[in-house]
Amino acid sequence: MASGAPEIEQLIQLLARLPGLGPRSARRAVLQLIKKKDALMVPLAAALDRAVVAVKICEICGNIDTRSPCSICADPRRRDAGLLIVVEDVADLWALERAGAGQVSYHVLGGVLSPLDGVGPDDLSIDALVARAPEFAEVVLAVNATVEGQTTAHYITDRLDGSNAKITRLAHGVPVGGELDYLDEGTLTQALKARTAI
Amino acid sequence: MASGAPEIEQLIQLLARLPGLGPRSARRAVLQLIKKKDALMVPLAAALDRAVVAVKICEICGNIDTRSPCSICADPRRRDAGLLIVVEDVADLWALERAGAGQVSYHVLGGVLSPLDGVGPDDLSIDALVARAPEFAEVVLAVNATVEGQTTAHYITDRLDGSNAKITRLAHGVPVGGELDYLDEGTLTQALKARTAI
Repeated sequence: MASGAPEIEQLIQLLARLPGLGPRSARRAVLQLIKKKDALMVPLAAALDRAVVAVKICEICGNIDTRSPCSICADPRRRDAGLLIVVEDVADLWALERAGAGQVSYHVLGGVLSPLDGVGPDDLSIDALVARAPEFAEVVLAVNATVEGQTTAHYITDRLDGSNAKITRLAHGVPVGGELDYLDEGTLTQALKARTAI
Repeated sequence: MASGAPEIEQLIQLLARLPGLGPRSARRAVLQLIKKKDALMVPLAAALDRAVVAVKICEICGNIDTRSPCSICADPRRRDAGLLIVVEDVADLWALERAGAGQVSYHVLGGVLSPLDGVGPDDLSIDALVARAPEFAEVVLAVNATVEGQTTAHYITDRLDGSNAKITRLAHGVPVGGELDYLDEGTLTQALKARTAI
């Protein structure tokens, strides 16, 4: 019990379930919301109400948008460019868009293969990917460079064996602005192997 | 731009203004909300709508509740106990309630005196405190142990000079579970001075 009023208590408990917020920061967030009622709480309530109604999952790629097919899938320039980027999660799609990926299409897997967590091929959007792949000249497997991500990439490569699409992955290397001293040896080895002329 | 849809973008920007969330964690929070639409997003939208309507600031003590006077001020047992605890913020009030402060009343100052930030006595609920104090046998100044908190406590002590209420402050000492080695010397000195028989 923090405040006594069930309306406030329930708001705290729901906010505490967001990633990055715990019970303590949820209480601080609710106090902030109440202090800035007109500038923050009312607009947030309205924005959530609008999002509940408007948000849709794209039936083609799995992106989150207010329309399905999403604005990316509906863009003929992107479709005609013939480049399909496969990502684990919508957050990765957004990250690539922020990075200015250009005229590309996406496919959101919805996770990675993980036998320990009970995630098999049927839990991911892999059949839909196999069905879409023939429409593209190149499929980039932009899954995370984790063991599970790489296992998933191998599995997808096998499944796409019959298609004519060229299958690629993101380059490994030194992050821009990164210091060599803090990099793991695997990355350094890959960056040295893939060195480029200046 | 993260998602393209203004409804989602606006939700991210509003959530990013909560304490403890930045742009990145707000994006993660929105993705979580959309993934758990029925279990999280819809209830949160409804809880916010309810809170916008229901939440009130108590006209007596400054507490946040769904009624004014708040349930604490409206409780005759608390009022009759004659103990008024002065806190900086509603979060401190909630912390004392969670700690089981018992049959006490509160007064929320709404901050501390801070000439650098332009916060003077008129910006805090000090006149209202001076008006209430005569109803209580003891006034505990539970402001934070910061320079500004202590300055505020001194100022309030001066202002309450005419009232008959006994004015006290929270004890300084070693936090329960705290290690001496990590404590500052000021706290240790105070804890030693105020040592008690076992």
